[in-house]
Amino acid sequence: MSHKKLFIPGPVEVKPDTLQACATPMIGHRVPEYAELHGACIPPLKTLLGTKNDIFLFTSSSTGAMEAAARNCAKKGAVACMLGAFSDRWYQIAVQNNKKTAKAQVEWGQAIRAETIEKHLKTGEYDCVLLVHNETSTGTMNPIEEIADMMKKYPDVVFVVDAVSSMAGVKIDVDRLGIDVILAGTQKAFGLPPGLTVCSCSPKALERAKQLPDRGYYFDFVEMKAFGDKNQTPCTPNISLIYGLRHQLDKFFKEGLEARFKRHMDLRDTCWNWIEEHGFKKFAPPGFESVTLTCAANTRKVDIVKWVKKVADRGFIISEGYGKLKQDAFRVAHMADCTIPELKECLGVMSEELRKL
Amino acid sequence: MSHKKLFIPGPVEVKPDTLQACATPMIGHRVPEYAELHGACIPPLKTLLGTKNDIFLFTSSSTGAMEAAARNCAKKGAVACMLGAFSDRWYQIAVQNNKKTAKAQVEWGQAIRAETIEKHLKTGEYDCVLLVHNETSTGTMNPIEEIADMMKKYPDVVFVVDAVSSMAGVKIDVDRLGIDVILAGTQKAFGLPPGLTVCSCSPKALERAKQLPDRGYYFDFVEMKAFGDKNQTPCTPNISLIYGLRHQLDKFFKEGLEARFKRHMDLRDTCWNWIEEHGFKKFAPPGFESVTLTCAANTRKVDIVKWVKKVADRGFIISEGYGKLKQDAFRVAHMADCTIPELKECLGVMSEELRKL
Repeated sequence: MSHKKLFIPGPVEVKPDTLQACATPMIGHRVPEYAELHGACIPPLKTLLGTKNDIFLFTSSSTGAMEAAARNCAKKGAVACMLGAFSDRWYQIAVQNNKKTAKAQVEWGQAIRAETIEKHLKTGEYDCVLLVHNETSTGTMNPIEEIADMMKKYPDVVFVVDAVSSMAGVKIDVDRLGIDVILAGTQKAFGLPPGLTVCSCSPKALERAKQLPDRGYYFDFVEMKAFGDKNQTPCTPNISLIYGLRHQLDKFFKEGLEARFKRHMDLRDTCWNWIEEHGFKKFAPPGFESVTLTCAANTRKVDIVKWVKKVADRGFIISEGYGKLKQDAFRVAHMADCTIPELKECLGVMSEELRKL
Repeated sequence: MSHKKLFIPGPVEVKPDTLQACATPMIGHRVPEYAELHGACIPPLKTLLGTKNDIFLFTSSSTGAMEAAARNCAKKGAVACMLGAFSDRWYQIAVQNNKKTAKAQVEWGQAIRAETIEKHLKTGEYDCVLLVHNETSTGTMNPIEEIADMMKKYPDVVFVVDAVSSMAGVKIDVDRLGIDVILAGTQKAFGLPPGLTVCSCSPKALERAKQLPDRGYYFDFVEMKAFGDKNQTPCTPNISLIYGLRHQLDKFFKEGLEARFKRHMDLRDTCWNWIEEHGFKKFAPPGFESVTLTCAANTRKVDIVKWVKKVADRGFIISEGYGKLKQDAFRVAHMADCTIPELKECLGVMSEELRKL
């Protein structure tokens, strides 16, 4: 069967040249050729993120690196910011790793405001904030500038950001915002297959990790730093995806970072225009909508499940609402290497199938 | 630069057809096509391992699944069997996850005997044994039959086996041996790139996991089972490697499992003959040598580092001794899809460069 193009919020469509970069023959992971490959990824990642912090490459999906952050960064306790299916995971992750955890929680679709988090920090009982930047299940983007400003009042609190579906699609100035740990899997705006997570880590987060003897082994920041200094990883890394990462980073800088971020804004605007023209409404509140994917409320009460299936039959995969929102929303992702004509092709088919419902 | 063929104990050489199978275009991980792909891997893996237990696919290198086993299976405490660099990790992993851990330890190169483990089990203080089958750093294969026989006297102890460099190259009858958890990364005898770990899990291990509230999130056996029952994983899996795994399993059964295991024995014998003809000795004691890689002691006192480099310059990568054994040993891996002519080509170059030293 022919391949169906992915417009789901991960895994995203991976271009043929990128798949071929991942298919480069294997090398050992303790040889200079590997260190050269690994080392070639680090400076462009630092530029992409606007950070001087260390960059770790975890051979895991994003959730693994989320667990790493919770285990390595929360000593007294963590504030988990909850606003949808993926950010809700932060709470479970922290609790299942024996962390005292407060819920900074809002309804699915709403954004987390600084004051909701600060209420918990004022108690002095928590030394880590676990925040999602872009909630993939609802298409909500949190006000990271506002939250970062508030965080500056709490210099002993480690600020962790899950940027899974925004990193490499939206500009995030890590050092200016004072983000200690930021992480994202490669299967979203990086335009790669899943299985590798990029994570930056500040000296403050590393110091915290050193104080936690039960931070585990596989996701130990201290070991990641020790091997990272040699452009290696403590365990065998996913070499194929690191080949792919180098290839994608080269493409990012050929396109230009600013041009890349602008293309993502243009993709968003194209999708928003479609939403409006077709009588739907965005699920997230105004000013808090995601740039990399659009979640629309099913204001027209169409049969989302049927429609999504019809669109899939035509070769384009979009997403129903997540979990409990299955029939109440739909999601179109527009990130990574997606072009305006490609998105328009998908939106065109969505229009046609919508009329036929 | 042209590709150098890998005869190191992982990552192993991956055939071009397998790299291309991994480069299959992406699909979503919550769609029937993914469940079909995942589901196609499970029955052949159960046949390969001789088990009716559940099979989990972890998106991580082997060490991640080792951590999973320690966190999910040790309640009272664990016995870590230590005989080389990789098995020594078992101890660190257990300790860094807050487990009371006993050392069943022998010198590097020696094998662990049942009595060394049983001494600790007799105390009644441990309910989990963490054993390496094939110690990759020294080329030692532990007497799994003898240890499995002893384990049958301790039905409350969960028996965990790291078969990282033996699974898919050596027959391991998981259910007959009573192995509760066995795991291996794909970059060894499976003939795939690194980044995915195959793990089987018995009902006993699952029951134990349920009793441990701090078993973590990413490597939680209970969630792996719940999603595995739907041929899915709790988090986004490494889809490329699962495409590759299905491709490799097809190849295994076309070759025939018995033929595959015999080829590995023939590769071993070819390497052993070379070792003997060239005046080296095997590093492991007689009867405890690995089938999938040979570690030879540097009985001729040659400059191993120089020799390995010269062989590499000719396009074949073999390994020095591991860590502290750097100049005292060398290692040649002969596993996965390696053929006798391919191994002989490498051994031929090794002979030529040895004469020139």
